[in-house]
Amino acid sequence: MDTAASVDIDNLRINGPRLWDSLMELAKIGAMPKGGVCRLTLTELDGQGRNLVTRWAREAGLTVTIDKIGNGFMRRAGRNNSLPPIVTGSHVDTQPTGGKFDGNYGVLAGLEVVRTLNDHGVETEAPIEVAFWTNEEGSRFVPVMMGSGVFAKVFTLEHAYHATDTEGKTVKDELAHIGYIGEQEPGEHPIGTYFETHIEQGPVLEDNDKTIGVVQGVLGIRWFDCTVTGMEAHAGPTPMALRKDAMQVAANLIQEVVAVALRHAPHGRGTVGMVQVHPNSRNVIPGRVKFSIDLRNATDALVDQMADEVKTYAAKLSQKTGLPILIELVSSYPAQAFHADCINAVARAAQKLGYSNMPAVSGAGHDAVYMARLAPSGMIFIPCKDGISHNEIEYASPEHITAGCNVLLHAMLERAGT
Amino acid sequence: MDTAASVDIDNLRINGPRLWDSLMELAKIGAMPKGGVCRLTLTELDGQGRNLVTRWAREAGLTVTIDKIGNGFMRRAGRNNSLPPIVTGSHVDTQPTGGKFDGNYGVLAGLEVVRTLNDHGVETEAPIEVAFWTNEEGSRFVPVMMGSGVFAKVFTLEHAYHATDTEGKTVKDELAHIGYIGEQEPGEHPIGTYFETHIEQGPVLEDNDKTIGVVQGVLGIRWFDCTVTGMEAHAGPTPMALRKDAMQVAANLIQEVVAVALRHAPHGRGTVGMVQVHPNSRNVIPGRVKFSIDLRNATDALVDQMADEVKTYAAKLSQKTGLPILIELVSSYPAQAFHADCINAVARAAQKLGYSNMPAVSGAGHDAVYMARLAPSGMIFIPCKDGISHNEIEYASPEHITAGCNVLLHAMLERAGT
Repeated sequence: MDTAASVDIDNLRINGPRLWDSLMELAKIGAMPKGGVCRLTLTELDGQGRNLVTRWAREAGLTVTIDKIGNGFMRRAGRNNSLPPIVTGSHVDTQPTGGKFDGNYGVLAGLEVVRTLNDHGVETEAPIEVAFWTNEEGSRFVPVMMGSGVFAKVFTLEHAYHATDTEGKTVKDELAHIGYIGEQEPGEHPIGTYFETHIEQGPVLEDNDKTIGVVQGVLGIRWFDCTVTGMEAHAGPTPMALRKDAMQVAANLIQEVVAVALRHAPHGRGTVGMVQVHPNSRNVIPGRVKFSIDLRNATDALVDQMADEVKTYAAKLSQKTGLPILIELVSSYPAQAFHADCINAVARAAQKLGYSNMPAVSGAGHDAVYMARLAPSGMIFIPCKDGISHNEIEYASPEHITAGCNVLLHAMLERAGT
Repeated sequence: MDTAASVDIDNLRINGPRLWDSLMELAKIGAMPKGGVCRLTLTELDGQGRNLVTRWAREAGLTVTIDKIGNGFMRRAGRNNSLPPIVTGSHVDTQPTGGKFDGNYGVLAGLEVVRTLNDHGVETEAPIEVAFWTNEEGSRFVPVMMGSGVFAKVFTLEHAYHATDTEGKTVKDELAHIGYIGEQEPGEHPIGTYFETHIEQGPVLEDNDKTIGVVQGVLGIRWFDCTVTGMEAHAGPTPMALRKDAMQVAANLIQEVVAVALRHAPHGRGTVGMVQVHPNSRNVIPGRVKFSIDLRNATDALVDQMADEVKTYAAKLSQKTGLPILIELVSSYPAQAFHADCINAVARAAQKLGYSNMPAVSGAGHDAVYMARLAPSGMIFIPCKDGISHNEIEYASPEHITAGCNVLLHAMLERAGT
């Protein structure tokens, strides 16, 4: 171990192979045949994942605090422990057919930062913490980003506790079952600055051949459910002119969801991911089609404009066809710009380390979005192969994993002070 | 009772209220809250329905024969029993949320013809039979029109026996369970002429304010499964230009299915009734969409032309978008023209009885389609309210129920000879 006095902070680098090994070790819990991970939030596997991470944290000398929604804070003391900690983190739960990196990388990158500081005996002025947030994915319990959302008082602890999975099990019971209901009130834990390192989950960095995405903010999201009501009828005896075919009207509107996104380039995005046809029988004209609409853009004004255009189109389509079209808002996530100090700290670190980088936006929600309401926050993106995530074949290279963590190290050191 | 000598055949009319009462009595078996019937083929309820109908047949003096696939033939002897029988019939199984009339009407109309002949002591030259065919609906076991299909040797008895429902139960076991495996080889039963009375299951007669549809034939049907393969990706971080959205390509092709039908008026029909999206998650760009295509037209040449146009369009769309599109033929039902003698017998009867009538086509398959391969066949349609069928609110008025049965009576008498 170096002594603190001898450390050249600018030349400090994390231990890439150790971080990679930790990622691979954690990925064994819930490992799937195709190389992915199924570690749904608050399952026994999630408990095992949390236990491994907290064991590693204690081995690295960190103290672990769990709050009432199961968020974990793993603390390395600073020289001045009255300062609010510089926090990094993410989540260890996965999608049902998730990969090894989504979320897990952000938590283990934080642990690797701490291990590196320990290796070199580096003290920081402010304490440093690594957080893991409960149920970021939302695959088993809604809402998504549950732990950070309760922490940021976006919704109440009671609301989260009563969420049920498809078997009727509650968040509260499942938290208790795996032993992760802590004492601390969510939100009472101080946060000075928050960083989150994450795979991009999209193809932009790879497409631009860049190592680091300096994340400027997170796109605003509007989720709608759309229901087109027609009239079920036998596909054979009903001539075309006498039909009320809900699927045909839905198909028309589904195409407008993409058209509106294309009209709002570069950040406009429109997706119909879920379609339910009733009665969904080969020889019955659909009487009802329900589908999801997901609209995103860089500002709330832009995404609201997109939603207005879809609604106006739907109203005209309904008038033309005579079929009622109901569009209901399901969820709304505001666009969130990150803090200039954090964006700049990430950009400076990438520059100093010699990594190719570019400004990026996050199209997906992350726990950092809620943290940004509480403290200066920022994110670091690294490429993932073919932009694929939420998939067992999700992959990020060891070089990029290392690069993102080095950027995190230097951004955190800038904010924590050495 | 009149004596045979005194009967004025032209003035013979069926007993409408009796037919209606029988329909309502049979509809009690499997009655549903909204007024419909759920009497899936080869369930215990189907057994009860068959038992009631055969009890009524025996009470009317008919002899009952069951064949090995559970088809029933209820025979009224003629003066010359070496002549092949003039047969009418349909089915007593229903859709899961079916109505009181589909199929059931055709069987009970046949029984009412016999009861009327009995009332008036009318003898016929050829014997008269009322048939019920096993599993016309195909809701529980495929293929549809199973009993008549085995009878017409469209597929084998063994093939039908091994069909399984969603619980893995087989047709053979379920036939045995309700006691309807008979001795007779399917197809060995002679048929001289076949008529089937049925609700139209479409809106054309009502739209034209006609009482009787003189059915000319049944549309040719082609069923396809279409699969569009894209690439699953997170709906947030994936810019529009880098997407392979299977749902968007599917929505485009789904609209072409209707467009091709409109180009092939008046009898062209195109329906997408079933859509499955994978993974069907709100915030995942669909990686695969599978949907059904149902094409129909009055001749096989026309329906094949429609299929070619859909395939050509799909090939161009695939080339333009880069997404593979697979179109596989699932089933093909040839167009079937009915026999001129039967069509004319129906038209003459309707005319003689003073019922408004029009030529009609059947867009749906019926057991009569398979019978038309074996013997001169024809169908009689009556209106159903709003064209609705395969639905609990399916309805036909007592006046139309009576009219269709009177047409059947006179068409059968013309063919059977008095």
